[in-house]
Amino acid sequence: MLKDKYRLQIPGPTPIPPRVQLAMSRPMIGHRDPDCSRLVREVSRRLGPVFGTQNPVLLLTGSGTSALEAAAANLLAEGEEAAVVVTGAFGDRFANILNSMRVKVHRLDVEWGKACHPEQLDAFLEQHPRVKAVFLTFCETSTGVLNPIRELVGRVRERTQALTVVDGVSCVGGVPAEADRWGIDILVAGSQKALMLPPGLAFAAVSDRAWNAMETNPHPRFYLDLSNYRKSLEKDTTPNTPAVSLLFGLKEVLDMLDEEGMETVFSRHRLMMEMTRAGIRALDLELLTEDRDASPTVTAVKGGKTWSSEDLRKELRRLGLRVAGGQQHLKGKIFRIGHMGYADPLDVLTTLSALEVALARIGAPVETGAGTQAAEEEWIRVSRADHRSVKQTGN
Amino acid sequence: MLKDKYRLQIPGPTPIPPRVQLAMSRPMIGHRDPDCSRLVREVSRRLGPVFGTQNPVLLLTGSGTSALEAAAANLLAEGEEAAVVVTGAFGDRFANILNSMRVKVHRLDVEWGKACHPEQLDAFLEQHPRVKAVFLTFCETSTGVLNPIRELVGRVRERTQALTVVDGVSCVGGVPAEADRWGIDILVAGSQKALMLPPGLAFAAVSDRAWNAMETNPHPRFYLDLSNYRKSLEKDTTPNTPAVSLLFGLKEVLDMLDEEGMETVFSRHRLMMEMTRAGIRALDLELLTEDRDASPTVTAVKGGKTWSSEDLRKELRRLGLRVAGGQQHLKGKIFRIGHMGYADPLDVLTTLSALEVALARIGAPVETGAGTQAAEEEWIRVSRADHRSVKQTGN
Repeated sequence: MLKDKYRLQIPGPTPIPPRVQLAMSRPMIGHRDPDCSRLVREVSRRLGPVFGTQNPVLLLTGSGTSALEAAAANLLAEGEEAAVVVTGAFGDRFANILNSMRVKVHRLDVEWGKACHPEQLDAFLEQHPRVKAVFLTFCETSTGVLNPIRELVGRVRERTQALTVVDGVSCVGGVPAEADRWGIDILVAGSQKALMLPPGLAFAAVSDRAWNAMETNPHPRFYLDLSNYRKSLEKDTTPNTPAVSLLFGLKEVLDMLDEEGMETVFSRHRLMMEMTRAGIRALDLELLTEDRDASPTVTAVKGGKTWSSEDLRKELRRLGLRVAGGQQHLKGKIFRIGHMGYADPLDVLTTLSALEVALARIGAPVETGAGTQAAEEEWIRVSRADHRSVKQTGN
Repeated sequence: MLKDKYRLQIPGPTPIPPRVQLAMSRPMIGHRDPDCSRLVREVSRRLGPVFGTQNPVLLLTGSGTSALEAAAANLLAEGEEAAVVVTGAFGDRFANILNSMRVKVHRLDVEWGKACHPEQLDAFLEQHPRVKAVFLTFCETSTGVLNPIRELVGRVRERTQALTVVDGVSCVGGVPAEADRWGIDILVAGSQKALMLPPGLAFAAVSDRAWNAMETNPHPRFYLDLSNYRKSLEKDTTPNTPAVSLLFGLKEVLDMLDEEGMETVFSRHRLMMEMTRAGIRALDLELLTEDRDASPTVTAVKGGKTWSSEDLRKELRRLGLRVAGGQQHLKGKIFRIGHMGYADPLDVLTTLSALEVALARIGAPVETGAGTQAAEEEWIRVSRADHRSVKQTGN
């Protein structure tokens, strides 16, 4: 078989659009060159609508985790209290970061595969009245859960003075995010998920409340000191050398999002989620997550009783398609399909048909074609509904 | 939808492997530079096994048609007689080229969609004893027919002194070709089909008999004078400036073919053909070509009675997948699926599932999932058989 031909259906890094790849191949420029300043200014402003903020978005060179730590390190210091809603491995990471800072962490642990619902958070906040900030995960990459961030942040703002930090790494760009309107104090994201770039850039949208809180925070920080990014951005630059080629690519990504239109981007992601879920169900496989908690960007599927999800992943890899495994205690128990960024409904059909062949080849019970058919029917149904709604709008 | 994401399932140009694209991005070199000479020497020799010849393969800069014309222009002159077996648009092109040279052309017209069978050729050759050369098409791109070239060339060699010219443009690299053993005098191919390159290079494998015939041929020629290519190749170069970046890519393609192994390349193409045909049949669509005449590189499918194949093609394009239409009198009556070069079985499944959705969306009768299922079952069956044969070899 063609050894280097594969479909990357993991929840990040995601495939790079060819025009973005080309843009990143442009000749290097100096990071203090006026061309780079123009680029920094343009992309930080054009990211605003993607994060739902009027402010320019800060550009960090680092992985998503660097932005998670930046949020924590700029808002909290040793001995202060923070609440972390842990719905999976990335909520857990927030807690680990805060623990490393010797912050007093109150964990609200939710069963992996379920979202945190507002009532749970209400009760938890009442128990911990002194928390300075609440850390939430928007899409929990490890489980495919989309937490109801708008509602959760709303409850925090209604009931407490705490700041809210949201990890949007694996969904911003693929689902609506309204940092300003929802009252998120720091919304962070990474480049390598729905934003269709290689890893290496992280982003943070910061509220005025958060800037105020940072001013007096004694926690030691240098590379991740967000106020330096803010001051630099006022001069259209970054405090240190940024990943310049990724900035070239980001401009192209923003063009692509503009051309498709954010509403269409979001409905494409919802459609891919619905098709994936319809296909998985038709194959009699078990989804980790209920419909109401499901993310449009990633879907986790439980392994079977008579076959190993790791064997399935290996077989899929042989067929030319890559999905992710489980993390921590879900390792070997689930597999995860990414459907975000440079992905479209045909990718979902390819994934499901590969899954059908792979299941058969590892000897798992499978009705070939059933998953693909269900996903096709979902696509046909949605496109008919779209057609009708376009017609009605036209009348 | 993602406007620039599409699957190119036409019978050429075919998708370019990323590593080939990268190789072609290398800095330009002069065409008389020693590095370019080494490259010309290497690729012309390494192409030999792909064409089944001990001789270095000539490298022309031009489309496939330039090599078809080169074969004609070097072997024949005004007033001489040639036989052309026309099984579709590309056999017809050979006849047009020869007519433009004022060669006396005897056409053996075979119904489009069928191969020429050796008995038909026998009878035809008897009627035309003075033909100097017989022009044959290996894979007829316009119909998806693979003519039985080994047998046809064998009959010509057995019964006549005529030279044989074979158009292998849309299959060499995807099916076994043995120019020397089968007695083909000129076998030509293009870069943009099973050889996974952009258009711009054409190739010719030439026998000693053909070189002898060329020596005395008075037909005027300059750019397409094959003897100049031969003389230049003896000095590891080309008579004119070659498409250097395509030569960079060709070296990478030859590495890929070596790494996969030609037998595996051929069985991958056969599998894609079988999967496509199984899928099309399961969808109750009509194949243009019978199994025994079918090419592993391209499959033609008839349009329906209640829907237009052009509407289907447009809808597929909207979904993110491109197939070709019919040519000449088959225009609007068939569509053609390419499955060659940088293509794998998952591409066939993607194509079939897209086809199912597109048929439904244009209101054609379709059982969603049925084609995908049949193709999956074919893949599963073949992989089980391969597994058994590996096991047996192991015993």
